[in-house]
Amino acid sequence: MISFVNDYSENAHPDILNALIETNLEGNVAYSGDEHTERAAKLIRKKIKKEDAEIQILMGGTQTNLIAACAFLRPHEAIIAVPTGHICIHETGAVESTGHKCIEVKGCAGKVTPQDIEEACGPQHWDHAGILCVKPRMVYISQTTEVGTVYTVNELRELRQICDKYNLLLYCDGARLASALDCSDVTLLIMAELCDAFYIGGTKNGALFGEALVIINDSLKNEFRYIAKQRGGMLAKGWLLGLQFEILMSNNLYERIGKHQNEMAKHLKKGLIELGIDFTVDSPSNQLFPILKNSVLDKLNEEFAYEIISVIDEQRTGIRLVTSWATKKCDVELFLKRLKEEIYHE
Amino acid sequence: MISFVNDYSENAHPDILNALIETNLEGNVAYSGDEHTERAAKLIRKKIKKEDAEIQILMGGTQTNLIAACAFLRPHEAIIAVPTGHICIHETGAVESTGHKCIEVKGCAGKVTPQDIEEACGPQHWDHAGILCVKPRMVYISQTTEVGTVYTVNELRELRQICDKYNLLLYCDGARLASALDCSDVTLLIMAELCDAFYIGGTKNGALFGEALVIINDSLKNEFRYIAKQRGGMLAKGWLLGLQFEILMSNNLYERIGKHQNEMAKHLKKGLIELGIDFTVDSPSNQLFPILKNSVLDKLNEEFAYEIISVIDEQRTGIRLVTSWATKKCDVELFLKRLKEEIYHE
Amino acid sequence: MISFVNDYSENAHPDILNALIETNLEGNVAYSGDEHTERAAKLIRKKIKKEDAEIQILMGGTQTNLIAACAFLRPHEAIIAVPTGHICIHETGAVESTGHKCIEVKGCAGKVTPQDIEEACGPQHWDHAGILCVKPRMVYISQTTEVGTVYTVNELRELRQICDKYNLLLYCDGARLASALDCSDVTLLIMAELCDAFYIGGTKNGALFGEALVIINDSLKNEFRYIAKQRGGMLAKGWLLGLQFEILMSNNLYERIGKHQNEMAKHLKKGLIELGIDFTVDSPSNQLFPILKNSVLDKLNEEFAYEIISVIDEQRTGIRLVTSWATKKCDVELFLKRLKEEIYHE
Amino acid sequence: MISFVNDYSENAHPDILNALIETNLEGNVAYSGDEHTERAAKLIRKKIKKEDAEIQILMGGTQTNLIAACAFLRPHEAIIAVPTGHICIHETGAVESTGHKCIEVKGCAGKVTPQDIEEACGPQHWDHAGILCVKPRMVYISQTTEVGTVYTVNELRELRQICDKYNLLLYCDGARLASALDCSDVTLLIMAELCDAFYIGGTKNGALFGEALVIINDSLKNEFRYIAKQRGGMLAKGWLLGLQFEILMSNNLYERIGKHQNEMAKHLKKGLIELGIDFTVDSPSNQLFPILKNSVLDKLNEEFAYEIISVIDEQRTGIRLVTSWATKKCDVELFLKRLKEEIYHE
Repeated sequence: MISFVNDYSENAHPDILNALIETNLEGNVAYSGDEHTERAAKLIRKKIKKEDAEIQILMGGTQTNLIAACAFLRPHEAIIAVPTGHICIHETGAVESTGHKCIEVKGCAGKVTPQDIEEACGPQHWDHAGILCVKPRMVYISQTTEVGTVYTVNELRELRQICDKYNLLLYCDGARLASALDCSDVTLLIMAELCDAFYIGGTKNGALFGEALVIINDSLKNEFRYIAKQRGGMLAKGWLLGLQFEILMSNNLYERIGKHQNEMAKHLKKGLIELGIDFTVDSPSNQLFPILKNSVLDKLNEEFAYEIISVIDEQRTGIRLVTSWATKKCDVELFLKRLKEEIYHE
Repeated sequence: MISFVNDYSENAHPDILNALIETNLEGNVAYSGDEHTERAAKLIRKKIKKEDAEIQILMGGTQTNLIAACAFLRPHEAIIAVPTGHICIHETGAVESTGHKCIEVKGCAGKVTPQDIEEACGPQHWDHAGILCVKPRMVYISQTTEVGTVYTVNELRELRQICDKYNLLLYCDGARLASALDCSDVTLLIMAELCDAFYIGGTKNGALFGEALVIINDSLKNEFRYIAKQRGGMLAKGWLLGLQFEILMSNNLYERIGKHQNEMAKHLKKGLIELGIDFTVDSPSNQLFPILKNSVLDKLNEEFAYEIISVIDEQRTGIRLVTSWATKKCDVELFLKRLKEEIYHE
Repeated sequence: MISFVNDYSENAHPDILNALIETNLEGNVAYSGDEHTERAAKLIRKKIKKEDAEIQILMGGTQTNLIAACAFLRPHEAIIAVPTGHICIHETGAVESTGHKCIEVKGCAGKVTPQDIEEACGPQHWDHAGILCVKPRMVYISQTTEVGTVYTVNELRELRQICDKYNLLLYCDGARLASALDCSDVTLLIMAELCDAFYIGGTKNGALFGEALVIINDSLKNEFRYIAKQRGGMLAKGWLLGLQFEILMSNNLYERIGKHQNEMAKHLKKGLIELGIDFTVDSPSNQLFPILKNSVLDKLNEEFAYEIISVIDEQRTGIRLVTSWATKKCDVELFLKRLKEEIYHE
Repeated sequence: MISFVNDYSENAHPDILNALIETNLEGNVAYSGDEHTERAAKLIRKKIKKEDAEIQILMGGTQTNLIAACAFLRPHEAIIAVPTGHICIHETGAVESTGHKCIEVKGCAGKVTPQDIEEACGPQHWDHAGILCVKPRMVYISQTTEVGTVYTVNELRELRQICDKYNLLLYCDGARLASALDCSDVTLLIMAELCDAFYIGGTKNGALFGEALVIINDSLKNEFRYIAKQRGGMLAKGWLLGLQFEILMSNNLYERIGKHQNEMAKHLKKGLIELGIDFTVDSPSNQLFPILKNSVLDKLNEEFAYEIISVIDEQRTGIRLVTSWATKKCDVELFLKRLKEEIYHE
């Protein structure tokens, strides 16, 4: 079975597994007080050119998002996000479990727009007492988004501007940041310039697990670690996280992983287009959303794994194909070949 | 200044104030263990013909809704509601502060429809792990709704049916239940037949304050009072709540208050229609939502108070006019007279 | 039945009931935006000589304490209190329900001591990662305490000093502040000088209900009302709270109520001492804790109500007698007379 | 530097690292729906002879404890624990962050006693309304305890009995269960017979990370995974957890690790006793708590790492020495040799 189900089906990039073995008996200090974590932080700070950025590597995306909500917001403050945002739909209400409301805005192609924020923060005629509505305080975006699209630098600058207008924090979920860095004009440097905080995803980019939260805004740094610990987010063997990001941030491994993901996806996309396949979303990143005939899918099911996203109509289904650091070109080609056969066979 | 701002601008119905004075030195048992509360509960149980209904009188609507969410739901369970629902827009995220997500559905005229529930509970192709989305568990409705509309018995029966299909609780916010009982075919008996829990609003219907939560579903009753206390909802002098509902539930006072509210509203509505006024919503209850010219409103502002709801266009504004137990017919007529003058004067 | 069960068995002081009637149809602005609330705040600010104190009148003690915890603390911050503190034992874990831990310290006669704070905040050898223990941030005291004792000005000054040393907030629960103001050297002025926030209790001092939270520390004021609303603490008819405190804070009513409570208690205490009765705590305020023989209590039960606090041994029980603004001297004397008879009869 | 700081200073047992490498490209199903997790669960179920036990492997101890509190308890229910319990002192208030109070009982040698539970659950004269105190619902114990002691089967049976009397859940934190299984008469079978839920610790017993929560009580199983996800406890690559426990539960590896930990600790303890060293607690497990002279410690500091637990007096300090699967006999002997030299040198 060849899998395009997601980008977290393998354990980890070999460089990371090797590092785990080489360091096995080092005897590191617990709770992220170790040298690997320090080196990973330095490597990230160097890439973003922010000497005083706070780096805290947590275990997973949901955990990172909920701890950020919990640590960055006061109880009555809310997060603006699009309905397809991971926090809105795929985290079992983790943000709400910390007491904060998500204000869902329409968005466009999975992205929050300045207009969305304007509507959420503009005059609320109905709040006649000035305290009846939650207070929007943070904008949640993802790069890439859940539907594979990416923000451009200009789009991010516009969001930053309107965030400043309404005194909002800009927070970016970077679960698939490697792919985004490769297929957009947004660099880590830009992320650090425009976001108050963001995370560099590890789980979906070759790490066993781990997401490196980068806190730029000074007012968000204070005693963050207490809250991470309280919510179960401090790994006792924190150096395992540090070590992985030390590897990912060295020798352009993170960038190379993003590049490979996208190359495989581009190859796949090109082939799909040549076969006349439509897409529910036009994605430049490592997630593709083609629409296939059910009769064709029935045939491919035995050899290939993917995720079903939506029922288009009685004959067609929207699926998702994801490429990872471990995706092989031959597998992409085999998929395209078999798809072609089934289409022509119809 | 004559006020149509809301139905909670006066202290309380005179019968209630009198009762407070007459019972002043009785020396009642604290925390709702008193005889007034017991009598109020009996009166309510008699009206709904449910001997074993649990009645708990709390202090306000937001408090009642948040305690219900907290007591009735497990952490991952969510509430379905329309965006204009009080819990969604006017309670500063109180439900979310207890950790629960509100799933906003489109609705129709401020009411949740079976189709809404079907969409929220039907197959979720995206929850590929079966645990990534919150679990819908309660439907929140209001009778009357925030926009003045009411559910019919048939509509409630349909909701009940689909709630049963998806194992959902049906909870009704009755902040303005007196008005609804008067202008719909839904009786207290029907409420108790079809809802798992609902509250009979006091604050907006002549009480100083207080909402009587009626719990019908046995599985929701257990140790509810602990949770009410934990969330600050148990009034030390609980008999103050019991006493008020004892009065409201006696001699048809509650029904008479609803009738008066609606009579005043009907009178007002008839006059507005005669003047050719449009409405943003067609409401049969004690809240009216007329659209008036800004130039006219500017003139009326000195004599009359009301709430601005929405900007229709550059010339017109949607306002809300609310009648209460204390609204006088002469005031309604004065408003209509002055409005007529201003319109003709234009 | 003559009751010494507590100081909240009556509805309210007649002046307050009268005010409710006189203002019934005024038509006040909702959510504490009214003039009574403004006047009450001014009267309090004048008494404490703090022009910029934030006054927010909430509905009950548990509610006030939980909203204060919620608004004043970050998630990992904890409250230091004695085990008999109301938040530790009598609020069904309301503070914990907002996510904050109460650190219980030994205390002395129901009071937190500087030594307690020193122990709670001093070096913690066990927190080897510097984030494993919650961070003490607020000291919770009550004036009077749950066991009827009072802090002196000197004791409060010492607490303030050690709070400053460890960057702790000092918060005082004033549920029975009227009695405390009468029997200690601590004035409202001193309270405002030494506490970051405190509340002036209404429920137990002649109000129907209501506690006036006084926030002195500027850093605690911001957007407090949002959080009060979110936790169900904003009464729609907020002026009912304002009005009551306007009355209580005028014409020395609050002070007179405290004085009467204490005079009745002193009269009772003197009589008990003359009968050779022991006490579990020596209280100068309106709560007395005598130890009586079970055989004697069995006789008094028919005529008098009180609360059982502790089993001393097989023959004796510790009870609590509380006096209120409504306690009559003749009732105190009747109790003493009947007690004397029963003791001599033994 | 030879470390006795803790039992989680190494990455993982070599068998586990090897398994990670061998399975790297398997392409497992996400969110614990994989075969390794299923096999790990089967192995555990076989050891405890409970076919229907629910097994959920989470990432760390604090996370497991907080998710258990969150999933097993209603909002007003509290946990009984000793002050040295991990949840009370070393989890930054994680349990309280889920809204639940920890009731601290005195305990004996780090263990909860039946008498403690009796006192916490017996008659509470002060809860005059029956809802003012939190409701004890779960007893939290650890095996081994934080101070290295272990419960015997008889002690566990007594706890179970009193838990049944008061309708309490018995929950055991097994962070160091491997050591406990080796040095007590309590087997996994007994754990499953007497506890409602417990976890088998991985992090401190050779795993990279991971704790296998075993839920025996049927009423606690329902929809547990939703809550685990909501609190950030579902690892996307859940098979990483399953794989590790598959290894640990095979070929007696878990038992062998416990045995080695204890053999090293016994060797160390024997040597310390021969040198006349006192202990703050008499521990049979892999944590030892000797009291050493500061002058001696000053000398050992350069070669050996350990944790300081308590200041005994001006001359002496209580330290903790922990042995792990990776502790070497020669290192224990070197420590004893150097200690002997320093003691004699004095």
